Amino acid sequence: MGLVVQKYGGSSVADAQGIKRVAKRVVEAKKNGHQVVVVVSAMGDTTDELIDLAGEVSPVPSGREMDMLLTAGERISMALLAMAIKALGHEAQSFTGSQAGVITDSVHNKARIIDVTPGRIRSSVDDGNIAIVAGFQGVSQDKKDITTLGRGGSDTTAVALAAALDAEVCEIYTDVDGVFTADPRVVSKARKIEWISFEDMLELASSGSKVLLHRCVEYARRYNIPIHVRSSFSGLKGTWVSSEPPQEHPAHREGQGEQSMEQAIISGVAHDTSEAKVTVVGVPDKPGEAAKIFRALADAELNLDMVVQNVSAASTGLTDISFTLPKDEGRSAITALEKRRPDIGFDALRYDDQIAKISLVGAGMKTNPGVTAHFFEALSNAGVNIELISTSEIRISVVTREDDVNPAVRAVHTAFGLDSESDEAVVYGGTGR
Amino acid sequence: MGLVVQKYGGSSVADAQGIKRVAKRVVEAKKNGHQVVVVVSAMGDTTDELIDLAGEVSPVPSGREMDMLLTAGERISMALLAMAIKALGHEAQSFTGSQAGVITDSVHNKARIIDVTPGRIRSSVDDGNIAIVAGFQGVSQDKKDITTLGRGGSDTTAVALAAALDAEVCEIYTDVDGVFTADPRVVSKARKIEWISFEDMLELASSGSKVLLHRCVEYARRYNIPIHVRSSFSGLKGTWVSSEPPQEHPAHREGQGEQSMEQAIISGVAHDTSEAKVTVVGVPDKPGEAAKIFRALADAELNLDMVVQNVSAASTGLTDISFTLPKDEGRSAITALEKRRPDIGFDALRYDDQIAKISLVGAGMKTNPGVTAHFFEALSNAGVNIELISTSEIRISVVTREDDVNPAVRAVHTAFGLDSESDEAVVYGGTGR
Repeated sequence: MGLVVQKYGGSSVADAQGIKRVAKRVVEAKKNGHQVVVVVSAMGDTTDELIDLAGEVSPVPSGREMDMLLTAGERISMALLAMAIKALGHEAQSFTGSQAGVITDSVHNKARIIDVTPGRIRSSVDDGNIAIVAGFQGVSQDKKDITTLGRGGSDTTAVALAAALDAEVCEIYTDVDGVFTADPRVVSKARKIEWISFEDMLELASSGSKVLLHRCVEYARRYNIPIHVRSSFSGLKGTWVSSEPPQEHPAHREGQGEQSMEQAIISGVAHDTSEAKVTVVGVPDKPGEAAKIFRALADAELNLDMVVQNVSAASTGLTDISFTLPKDEGRSAITALEKRRPDIGFDALRYDDQIAKISLVGAGMKTNPGVTAHFFEALSNAGVNIELISTSEIRISVVTREDDVNPAVRAVHTAFGLDSESDEAVVYGGTGR
Repeated sequence: MGLVVQKYGGSSVADAQGIKRVAKRVVEAKKNGHQVVVVVSAMGDTTDELIDLAGEVSPVPSGREMDMLLTAGERISMALLAMAIKALGHEAQSFTGSQAGVITDSVHNKARIIDVTPGRIRSSVDDGNIAIVAGFQGVSQDKKDITTLGRGGSDTTAVALAAALDAEVCEIYTDVDGVFTADPRVVSKARKIEWISFEDMLELASSGSKVLLHRCVEYARRYNIPIHVRSSFSGLKGTWVSSEPPQEHPAHREGQGEQSMEQAIISGVAHDTSEAKVTVVGVPDKPGEAAKIFRALADAELNLDMVVQNVSAASTGLTDISFTLPKDEGRSAITALEKRRPDIGFDALRYDDQIAKISLVGAGMKTNPGVTAHFFEALSNAGVNIELISTSEIRISVVTREDDVNPAVRAVHTAFGLDSESDEAVVYGGTGR
């Protein structure tokens, strides 16, 4: 039996009761013969409370001090978890990010891991201890200052440690049962996915699925660390995210080369209502115009998502360019473009934040014709109008009205046979997408 | 202008308002041209809350993990203080005990400082920053584990840093105006002491005065670091604790060799109701008997305070030995002695926890005859009976009934001219003590 890294989020360790429940689960893994390293987030609302306190003493808290402050949160939860494990008769030691060898760059509040030197963790587990590591934090390589990894940082800590310790698996414990074929709050018939490839998971994560962040999946893919996302509240198996399906999975049994119909065509439907759409109307359709627009946006350090340009109307020689980006960056985008208007020479700007993005993700669509048509038919039958379309090798995304998002996601989920009761085979005809 | 170390306790930084008030005071010192290092405790009740949490997850939390947990408290207050200072337009950086170079032994929960290597603090202040350091914590020399210094630890951190940085003064900010000639809650006419020697302060601290702990004063005396105890809520000067009176002090003006009457005879009256008295009755008055008693108590790791033996009654060849110790160690003392009773051979044990200890402290009493007599007369006039007497070079302590403590302290305070309105000179007659 090898080494397992387990990560528990803030909702799993929200109070003393939760910490004791987590301790039991950790001890179970140890009893099963694993070496166990646990990565833990701050308890429940601790981080928010600390942020509020910072707001009370300073209008613009410095990054370095904010990191010093916030890292107190994991220090509390990790020490309590170590105590709770010891109370169950097992040896445990807690370590800060710095003690665990999580070396980062110096960008406070959103540092990136540049190396992991887990010598103390290795010694601790080799001595028979369960090692508890503070998630979300590290120490900067040059200044030896405390840093935090930003959003999703604890998941990334867990995967990075798993890679550095050559772990069998990185288990991410959360408050849901795994990754679903759609958001269960929207689609009551959404099904838990047993296995999903890194690639499909990356597309889901960037299309609005919130269970795992893109950054953590990308890290796992690079070092080929299998992730098992599961609930800390139930004993159920969750979702495996890895390069190959596990031994017991149908996709594996049915042969490596072929892909099973049911599993591989479509992994799931994701949606995202956090973006806004900007349309630049009446752009001269000649070389260099689009470049000017996106240079202006890049200089303003804006993160664009979808970018769509249609063919121009021959009669006018003008075209429209649309893109989406996070709503809270909308104003900056408009300002940046208006400033360069004389140079770019467009007719008008249209801004719309009442939109939703709906994405269908699955490596299987590469080799299955008709997926796109089937997707659009499903939306049409539900009376949903499509405003933008953008595709990748394994994803189709459309922009619709925000009000249409729930019926649209349900319709697509049903149409692709993803509903949990449905066992029907889905056959696609037509000319491919 | 040199470097100043300021220490603020938990009550001074209990909330955002308190932190901002402290920030202003720190900035003032910086504006006056000092290099400033600030040692800060955890906010208000944080430590107690964390201890409660630990109790919820483990009946006997491990020392290592308890230290990891508790040190989160200072991490929060120090980061917030650094932010608040920066919000006032001054540069500040916070440092953990480990980052500040506070090296300790490995005794968790009550580690002792064995070295201070403040390289990062020195660089930080030399770069123009105000350095904020977490009190109460350090890192163990051998295992590099986080440790805490136990009771009064933050004061000790401040004095140790002041010594290592060769500071001009260590300012201890607290919620009282300084060290008083008696506890102001008991003696309304108690007077703030302007200056007190290390020796007298040590005696007061071990006699029940709670403003400064013995350990911190001892450290300051060893490295000759002047301490200025003062209130963080007022702008008043507090009490200087140092080897020599400051330049502006009357004791200084009146000549180094001589001691001023008013100041030096008596520093103050301390009282302590936290102890119990044990009397071993009918001990054979022959060599080795007392040794057996105190060996038994030492083996039980009990901390005795006063120890008194009177001459034996010639007729019986038996004597009585009394000692005092903290009330919560009383049961252990009785058990330890009962176990060795056959060997020691005493008649009976008497236990009494309704006692008070009243101590008169002052280096002046060494050269002033009649202090003891005057002390006992004051008690007698107040109708207070004396049960035990013990003296050192600069202290007289008596044990009385606990009910008598307040009138006794007031009577002594008045008798030695310590009352604030009184300017009368006190003359002692008699044969000296």
